[in-house]
Amino acid sequence: MTNLINDLCNSQEFIGRHNGPNANDQQAMLDIINSLSDSQAESLDQLIAQTVPANIRLAAPMNLDAPMSEADMLTKMKGIAQLNKVQRTFIGQGYYNTFTPNVILRNVLENPGWYTAYTPYQPEISQGRLESLLNYQQMVIDLTGMDIANASLLDEATAAGEALTLCKRAGKSKSNVFFVADDVHPQTIEVVKTRAEFIGFEVMIGNVDSLPQQDVFGALLQYPSTTGEVRDLSDIIAAAQANKTLVTVATDLLASTLLKPAGEMGADVVIGSAQRFGVPVGYGGPHAAFMATREKHKRTMPGRVIGVSIDSKGKQALRMAMQTREQHIRREKATSNICTAQALLANMASFYAVYHGAEGLRTIARRTHHFTAILAAGLRSAGHKLVHDTFFDTITVDSQEQTERLYQAAQHAGINLRKLPSQIGISLDETTKAEDIETLFTVFSVEGNVDTYSSDIAANEFAAIPSDCQRTSPFLTHPVFNTHRSETQMMRYLKKLENKDFSLTHGMIPLGSCTMKLNAAAEMIPVTWPEFGSIHPFAPLEQAAGYTALADSLKKQLCEITGYDEFSLQPNSGASGEYAGLIAIQRYHQSRGEGHRNVCLIPSSAHGTNPATASMVSMKVVVVMCDEYGNIDMQDLAAKIDKHHSNLSSIMITYPSTHGVYEEQVQKVCEMVHAAGGQVYLDGANMNAQVGLTNPGVIGGDVSHLNLHKTFCIPHGGGGPGMGPIGVKSHLAPFLPGHIENGVEGKDYAVSAADLGSASILPISWAYITMMGGTGLTEATKIAILNANYIMERLRPHYPVLYRGHNGRVAHECIIDIRPLKEATGISEEDIAKRLMDYGFHAPTMSFPVAGTLMVEPTESEDKTELDRFCDAMIAIRQEMDKVQQGEWPLDNNPLVNAPHTQADLMSETWEHPYTREVACFPSAQAKDAKYWPTVNRVDNVYGDRNLICSCPSIESYQ
Amino acid sequence: MTNLINDLCNSQEFIGRHNGPNANDQQAMLDIINSLSDSQAESLDQLIAQTVPANIRLAAPMNLDAPMSEADMLTKMKGIAQLNKVQRTFIGQGYYNTFTPNVILRNVLENPGWYTAYTPYQPEISQGRLESLLNYQQMVIDLTGMDIANASLLDEATAAGEALTLCKRAGKSKSNVFFVADDVHPQTIEVVKTRAEFIGFEVMIGNVDSLPQQDVFGALLQYPSTTGEVRDLSDIIAAAQANKTLVTVATDLLASTLLKPAGEMGADVVIGSAQRFGVPVGYGGPHAAFMATREKHKRTMPGRVIGVSIDSKGKQALRMAMQTREQHIRREKATSNICTAQALLANMASFYAVYHGAEGLRTIARRTHHFTAILAAGLRSAGHKLVHDTFFDTITVDSQEQTERLYQAAQHAGINLRKLPSQIGISLDETTKAEDIETLFTVFSVEGNVDTYSSDIAANEFAAIPSDCQRTSPFLTHPVFNTHRSETQMMRYLKKLENKDFSLTHGMIPLGSCTMKLNAAAEMIPVTWPEFGSIHPFAPLEQAAGYTALADSLKKQLCEITGYDEFSLQPNSGASGEYAGLIAIQRYHQSRGEGHRNVCLIPSSAHGTNPATASMVSMKVVVVMCDEYGNIDMQDLAAKIDKHHSNLSSIMITYPSTHGVYEEQVQKVCEMVHAAGGQVYLDGANMNAQVGLTNPGVIGGDVSHLNLHKTFCIPHGGGGPGMGPIGVKSHLAPFLPGHIENGVEGKDYAVSAADLGSASILPISWAYITMMGGTGLTEATKIAILNANYIMERLRPHYPVLYRGHNGRVAHECIIDIRPLKEATGISEEDIAKRLMDYGFHAPTMSFPVAGTLMVEPTESEDKTELDRFCDAMIAIRQEMDKVQQGEWPLDNNPLVNAPHTQADLMSETWEHPYTREVACFPSAQAKDAKYWPTVNRVDNVYGDRNLICSCPSIESYQ
Repeated sequence: MTNLINDLCNSQEFIGRHNGPNANDQQAMLDIINSLSDSQAESLDQLIAQTVPANIRLAAPMNLDAPMSEADMLTKMKGIAQLNKVQRTFIGQGYYNTFTPNVILRNVLENPGWYTAYTPYQPEISQGRLESLLNYQQMVIDLTGMDIANASLLDEATAAGEALTLCKRAGKSKSNVFFVADDVHPQTIEVVKTRAEFIGFEVMIGNVDSLPQQDVFGALLQYPSTTGEVRDLSDIIAAAQANKTLVTVATDLLASTLLKPAGEMGADVVIGSAQRFGVPVGYGGPHAAFMATREKHKRTMPGRVIGVSIDSKGKQALRMAMQTREQHIRREKATSNICTAQALLANMASFYAVYHGAEGLRTIARRTHHFTAILAAGLRSAGHKLVHDTFFDTITVDSQEQTERLYQAAQHAGINLRKLPSQIGISLDETTKAEDIETLFTVFSVEGNVDTYSSDIAANEFAAIPSDCQRTSPFLTHPVFNTHRSETQMMRYLKKLENKDFSLTHGMIPLGSCTMKLNAAAEMIPVTWPEFGSIHPFAPLEQAAGYTALADSLKKQLCEITGYDEFSLQPNSGASGEYAGLIAIQRYHQSRGEGHRNVCLIPSSAHGTNPATASMVSMKVVVVMCDEYGNIDMQDLAAKIDKHHSNLSSIMITYPSTHGVYEEQVQKVCEMVHAAGGQVYLDGANMNAQVGLTNPGVIGGDVSHLNLHKTFCIPHGGGGPGMGPIGVKSHLAPFLPGHIENGVEGKDYAVSAADLGSASILPISWAYITMMGGTGLTEATKIAILNANYIMERLRPHYPVLYRGHNGRVAHECIIDIRPLKEATGISEEDIAKRLMDYGFHAPTMSFPVAGTLMVEPTESEDKTELDRFCDAMIAIRQEMDKVQQGEWPLDNNPLVNAPHTQADLMSETWEHPYTREVACFPSAQAKDAKYWPTVNRVDNVYGDRNLICSCPSIESYQ
Repeated sequence: MTNLINDLCNSQEFIGRHNGPNANDQQAMLDIINSLSDSQAESLDQLIAQTVPANIRLAAPMNLDAPMSEADMLTKMKGIAQLNKVQRTFIGQGYYNTFTPNVILRNVLENPGWYTAYTPYQPEISQGRLESLLNYQQMVIDLTGMDIANASLLDEATAAGEALTLCKRAGKSKSNVFFVADDVHPQTIEVVKTRAEFIGFEVMIGNVDSLPQQDVFGALLQYPSTTGEVRDLSDIIAAAQANKTLVTVATDLLASTLLKPAGEMGADVVIGSAQRFGVPVGYGGPHAAFMATREKHKRTMPGRVIGVSIDSKGKQALRMAMQTREQHIRREKATSNICTAQALLANMASFYAVYHGAEGLRTIARRTHHFTAILAAGLRSAGHKLVHDTFFDTITVDSQEQTERLYQAAQHAGINLRKLPSQIGISLDETTKAEDIETLFTVFSVEGNVDTYSSDIAANEFAAIPSDCQRTSPFLTHPVFNTHRSETQMMRYLKKLENKDFSLTHGMIPLGSCTMKLNAAAEMIPVTWPEFGSIHPFAPLEQAAGYTALADSLKKQLCEITGYDEFSLQPNSGASGEYAGLIAIQRYHQSRGEGHRNVCLIPSSAHGTNPATASMVSMKVVVVMCDEYGNIDMQDLAAKIDKHHSNLSSIMITYPSTHGVYEEQVQKVCEMVHAAGGQVYLDGANMNAQVGLTNPGVIGGDVSHLNLHKTFCIPHGGGGPGMGPIGVKSHLAPFLPGHIENGVEGKDYAVSAADLGSASILPISWAYITMMGGTGLTEATKIAILNANYIMERLRPHYPVLYRGHNGRVAHECIIDIRPLKEATGISEEDIAKRLMDYGFHAPTMSFPVAGTLMVEPTESEDKTELDRFCDAMIAIRQEMDKVQQGEWPLDNNPLVNAPHTQADLMSETWEHPYTREVACFPSAQAKDAKYWPTVNRVDNVYGDRNLICSCPSIESYQ
């Protein structure tokens, strides 16, 4: 193409859409940096050269396809999507077709007001999704019949893994064995086996009836079973509990509207998936899993829990309860490393329940069950033998030598069934129609018609559910589940909650380490294409050719970006990626006869997840000190390597470090570990500062996870989904996670329920990389660094900056030290964080990695105007701190300690503050122009944790 | 199907989603009505029987397909959509492919925050879209080089029709002839001919060079011409103006970035379409047309104009300027009846310009032009003769006897070209790529490749544009067009504006006569399917088979609902429907040799549009009086009929009447008119109160328009699109609007640029009817009546209700008379309307149809809770009025006259009101829970009209 055509075609347009500052802004920012800094940078490239050590810079640009326009990308994506073949699917096994109510689809899943929000760590600006997540917990509590529930886990299989360790933590048994019923979903068994093996537990798989005879610390049952049986487990559970066995039951939320819930059978823990409540199957994820347990175990429950507390004015307010998680408290003794949740999907599921209510859900369940009963009757009348007499939505045909023929006949009719060795499983769902049953009748040579069977069954609609398994208890009685029946009501409820929450649609979310960059609309559009949404994870592989092509292309892109040789997309969170990575390292050592290597070096600055993950694979964590500049203390490192030489498994490092600096000696660190026979785990949390400039391969990593929800544009969803694929050098490739194939058997060591983890959001990252190309990705990294240095230099005259590299530069984020200011003024980092809300900002990361600090990461997507707005706010806040220090404002009554301010504050007639209403609520021009309002005053976390309430408050208590 | 399956399948689910009150609520509302009313209704059906006269009730339920679930409807719709065949299309002729920026697609077109808003008559709660529409005007002013522009018209052809009458109104010529250049788009010529004929002007079509010789009051030229020619029209325009001819130029916005704008050539009026600025072609609409003119003509410009004014605190505020339109001022002397605009589409186009800026638009234009230049060079080198040497994006090949062969060759290559009698037109656009040119080269047997031609042209990129036609003036220099370049910035700008505006996402919009019902997400989803969006209105008919099927099905549904025999979907607004309907009547009379019939009876209560429309078809309006109950005065009617017996053309009535009452004698009225040889035009504005209970056919109408954007769920879009198809009895069917076929020739009397009007929003109404079925539609009507009567009865103890039927019932809306209260308290209907904003409501319709009243229409979509919230607010306001009356609050300082209150009010330190801040801003529990904030205080309309500013204020003036 000619230069002119190239220029005019502007295939690089998206780069300028993704990156905030344009060329003029970049120069203006450099000028300001130069005016404030000792080092001078004439160009962006020079700034980068001063920041990123030369020895780790890439020798050549990344070899990626040229950037593509939004339209071209979408055309190409459509071509890939259409390689998937959407067939009627009755495979079940934990994944069911569902109708996403369109009002939820449009106003939640396709709405940046919902999907760009962060995890609700700052409750004052998150009451909307906190309410929705509390609804989720209430829904799970009601449907499972349990006391308390969390706000979602990653998937049903990893929820089972979490239940495994919960049973050990909470139980009193001395046994080391975990029992798993043989009628649990195979993918769940697979993940539980992985979890057990590396933490050092034994898994016993057996018939559920044998459980009472076993000496096991915990057990996992499935109800209804994977083949559909419905039976009362009460006696078995009671008998097991008498043996000090804690019993986990995996169950189904829709079934629980008709069946006696597992909680009423005495289960200690109930887990499952909320997928079928309106979340497309999407080739396996993301969906929200759930976990519910008893009151007495509530403080050992993994994952996030939303609780009710009060704010500083005594008004009811929600927030995440018990925020200090397992890995923070117990670090290297932790048995769970879970961080993220599936907030966006949990919200969708809870809205589905809010919209349908108990009555609507029961109707859906009855319909599903009735069609199943019709199908069962037809099959029996045609002489087919059913494995179980009881069922909710799943029947299993004992098809023996007819299996293949029947399976193929169904395929021929355009229907996917579940093929077991000598059985065929059929699971119906919300979308099943009479026509589907007719087609199945044809496949199975059933005479008679649907109506006749229906009439026969109608008189005894629930005959297939044992009478002692029929639900009698009410559920979803709270007003929120009984109010929003019309679409108008639902839409307004969704919008009301959305408008309570701060998201990227309002302003910058400068969270250090969290990389809250643009989630472009073009990246999100394919996510809700039916070609991606409607593929079952255990559908025949040829029907998922689009997913395979997408995954292969994305892996190739990620290999090029990271310098690794192979990728696994299975881990569906960063923590899961770490876990899969350490397993790969351990299996590698084992394969070389060095299974004894079990020491994991971790710098003192590491995220709490690192030691927790090491603990989960039975590694011994040895902490390496940092020097005063925040870098790894090389002497201490050498000493620790020396001491643990023969048992050294690995080191886990983050690069740039969690201190926001490119350590110069990182390659040396890797070399030292390698020389001692260890492997390098390079945490990918800060990959946003590497892409195109350096990579883990060059640095010396053997394995890394990538947070696709940070660097690669998957939105945070208000607290999930995340996605944590891992890349490895070729020697570790054989040890990447395996997975059951076609839902039956396969390679071992699965870490997620589905082979591609959260497959349906992979298009987002692929779209981002494809539209940016190598040029754009590299420019993004440079601008992320420019933006961070710009903020750092603008703030440095006002706030101490904790760590900088040797040219005085920071990487893509910077840490501001509030400790000396707090000493001087009495104002804390939390006060600043809350005061920023009055200025229309989400707070930076607080007290990580260093207590008493704020870590700011602007990302490349914020433009100069927004960066200036932030810096101006921070400087204004610093001046407010001065007024407190100078006694102009008392320490107990100033806009900082009283922050955030609400409309209710402004409403009050009396104003007993030494500052004006304007200062309180409209401290900046932007706040006057487009005020974002926190909806509660500062939330009391201590009160809430002390008075733990994790279900919906009664309606009276709101008033 | 068995009853059980039917019950469980719940195909009627959508009915309960669309209608607000459930069965319990309905009963509770009846109970309350009974407790307040003299008449007692035991059931909803009884209430309806008391309300709707028995003689006009339908004899049998409507014969429509059974209701369909959202999912089934979408499946069926997808099947219809896929009958459309999307091909590469280079037809041009006013419609061009375009890329809708995804950030605009998602956050505007697919976002109820934008599409459910009403026309911004209440500026205090509409500043968001007023800003965006002002941007639109600025964009048009800049690109056309004119002084002032309006905020959109319906389409380019009707804009030409408006220009025709503007030229007559504003000009000084005594001629009765309008000149149209023969190189204007054929569909424009067609519509102009219709407009001219019925208003009594002559159209002269001729070569543009002949214009200066003609004695004509106005002229319409096209620049670039329909066949692509670019020539300087300055001399011709000047010569024509010297003859007292006002000259309108139809132009292209994208071309105007490279070409000297029509305004700089001296045009008096410039019109065109903003479609190619990001609005999908969608088989012809809806798109925003534009009109710009000179300062001196500003007060004669049709359509809505946004202007800058100030609020009661002197702060800058936007509002619709000169709201009293042509038809209100001049009624039966009006030469325009235009009401609605294309606000949603105008906003999309203006956001497109905001996002791209001058630089981006120029790049798009240069690319389009460069590819056109390459194509032209290639065609010439292959020996093809081009009709013009100059062009922007369109070339016309003088293909003579090769025409059919070349056209078919292109079809064979999957490309649609424009086929003229012996020429082929090719129009390129934003989406054109080098590959397209290569394909065209193959079709036209061009040797050589794109790159070679590109290189040759590069040195003189604009050689095909005459030097005196090249643009030198800057455009889009205002900051708003130079700020939002990154998607993050753009998304925040869109959200900021959205959040300023009250829409159905916030609460009820109880606008009498406007029917602000639910616009369900499922109805909106197909609108942005590419199968609907990408079809050119002049594509070969077989490629539009989906549209044809949809239109046929919708017409059939509408015939059944209305009792008419035939429908035309062409009129793209209610006013356009009225116009097409009166034309049908006049043509019918003419066909019977009674062309002299020219008297149109119109009740005094009629909407101003009725007499204006009559005037546009040269009818003489005779007003019929109403009696004290608001009904037509039968004696006066008889007298008027008698007097005008031989010349009686028609009567225009609205049913139920604009007074919100089912007149008992309506059939008698129709009979009397028919007996005198007249036709009955039954305005469909209030069709929401008829569907399923009665219909125009039963009542006696001969022709009606339907407002699909009222009764049939097309959203109001913040001020358009509307859609006004007309139904007729069979005797009028031959006189429905015709249209050019395949863009060339066809039947006469087109009223819109495209045959199906705003085709791409027809799926909305089809989806609504299909999901509701006859049962649901009828229930909706009943509930609309129930809701109105509930509000009426709850308010009646507090406010006088103006008109009620003989059982004391109202139809679907009710009029509250504020005049006696104003007399007593000094508080006006406007004060109440503005005060409602403080309570979180959009005001009801003010002073229509009776000055000093409020007309409330809740629609069926609002539930009891929201109705109660409204009634509670109205009653609380009534009590506030009492306090003023009792002197507790002074007349010049009370929450009513000071309403609406803003955040700025609350911010102020001093509070000099006799009521509290809480009373001001949070007068209800809901306002405390989820406050919607007006962003400016009461806007001064008089100031704005007196100091008319209709372009973007300088940035300084904001500060």
